[in-house]
Amino acid sequence: MKEVLLKDGERLDDLHRKGYRIIQNPKMFCFGMDAVLLAGFAKVSPEERVLDMGTGNGIIPLLLHARYGPKHITGLEIQEENIDMARRSVAINDLQEDVTIIHGDIKEAETLLPLSGFDVITANPPYMDSGTGLKNLHDAKTIARHEVLCSLEDVVMKASKLLKVGGRFYLVHRPHRLVDIMTHLRAYKMEPKRLMMVHPFLESEANMVLLEAVRYGNPQLRVEKPLIVYQKKGVYTPEIHDIYGY
Amino acid sequence: MKEVLLKDGERLDDLHRKGYRIIQNPKMFCFGMDAVLLAGFAKVSPEERVLDMGTGNGIIPLLLHARYGPKHITGLEIQEENIDMARRSVAINDLQEDVTIIHGDIKEAETLLPLSGFDVITANPPYMDSGTGLKNLHDAKTIARHEVLCSLEDVVMKASKLLKVGGRFYLVHRPHRLVDIMTHLRAYKMEPKRLMMVHPFLESEANMVLLEAVRYGNPQLRVEKPLIVYQKKGVYTPEIHDIYGY
Repeated sequence: MKEVLLKDGERLDDLHRKGYRIIQNPKMFCFGMDAVLLAGFAKVSPEERVLDMGTGNGIIPLLLHARYGPKHITGLEIQEENIDMARRSVAINDLQEDVTIIHGDIKEAETLLPLSGFDVITANPPYMDSGTGLKNLHDAKTIARHEVLCSLEDVVMKASKLLKVGGRFYLVHRPHRLVDIMTHLRAYKMEPKRLMMVHPFLESEANMVLLEAVRYGNPQLRVEKPLIVYQKKGVYTPEIHDIYGY
Repeated sequence: MKEVLLKDGERLDDLHRKGYRIIQNPKMFCFGMDAVLLAGFAKVSPEERVLDMGTGNGIIPLLLHARYGPKHITGLEIQEENIDMARRSVAINDLQEDVTIIHGDIKEAETLLPLSGFDVITANPPYMDSGTGLKNLHDAKTIARHEVLCSLEDVVMKASKLLKVGGRFYLVHRPHRLVDIMTHLRAYKMEPKRLMMVHPFLESEANMVLLEAVRYGNPQLRVEKPLIVYQKKGVYTPEIHDIYGY
């Protein structure tokens, strides 16, 4: 196994897929179940080009590469510490030819990336609006969780410029924002086509939504069977085991 | 029990609630599970005034009266045969003081009913767009199923005029129209607040959606636990038994 240089505070995690590993720093934002579910929900073909907007430490490109091996994956990220970690993770998995991590702002994405250049775009954006009274606006966790540097509308608007006609946009977000999500997607000609609600238990409210939208798609939404995370406290359902690839 | 005069082709069905009965004509549109689920999903207080838009044979007013006994329920309906049946059903249940069936067009609702006059509005509108090649545009079943006489947007627009600020709009519809529903609701200042997906089986796609919107509500949607209809073929789940009131 390759020797890996970890910086102060970093750790190396096994992704349990094709032996891929990822560098994370708990002071930044470590990946959660939402990223894993998004990569499981997305459908990507081997000949397709993928963009992950706000890729963080590169978790979604790594998971998508492990599962689908698409032609190429670009990860766009604004925070320098994340860029550095993501690029080293790409290197330790020997994916430099297939995965490129680009440093830049989603709000300027069309100056960095080709218009209508992607078959698939994924995004796991901040869930909370920027609100008021937020402290530490430059803190990495705040940036990952709150719409400090870009809003949901920014993400949707830029995705619609970078996606081919007929291309697919995959989003994971929170149910409380679903109306915002749908109205923005339709306004930017990315029609929601497939929706999945994620419920911690069968008896609980949804705490995540997974959505597929198609650029210039016809209006016709399918709501898939609900994804239930736990069959009982501490015990994952078979669907979750399947998505985690254990 | 009261003597009931049934016209040709009509039948009298027991609602299994407070002994209420309803006149139906299978040549028209008999009520289905959607109406029952909508009445179960809606929350109404005894002092509230309710409007049911496109009430058909009056099933939703009868179910809501049996469950909540609100101050008053108005049913608005355009088809004369339905009006006639609904009024006789109100009479056989002795509800003439509490339930009024009004003959009129949803598209002219604000000329028939008081602006901002209702605390709660319910609607089980046609699910299918008017499409092309539809035959029998005057057929009662076509009118109930397709947007021949009014569109989803008409229903939402008129409901927003008739609902008090803070009043609640309850809708049952099909998942494939969910983006239309949410964009129209937001456009007419009726913010979706509570959404429930209905799945025939735990493993199947949703085939109905139940939605509560609040006039001038703040954006914040809750997605409730999924409602599963059958635990196995032919066997209802306890939730459905509960809603049906058996």
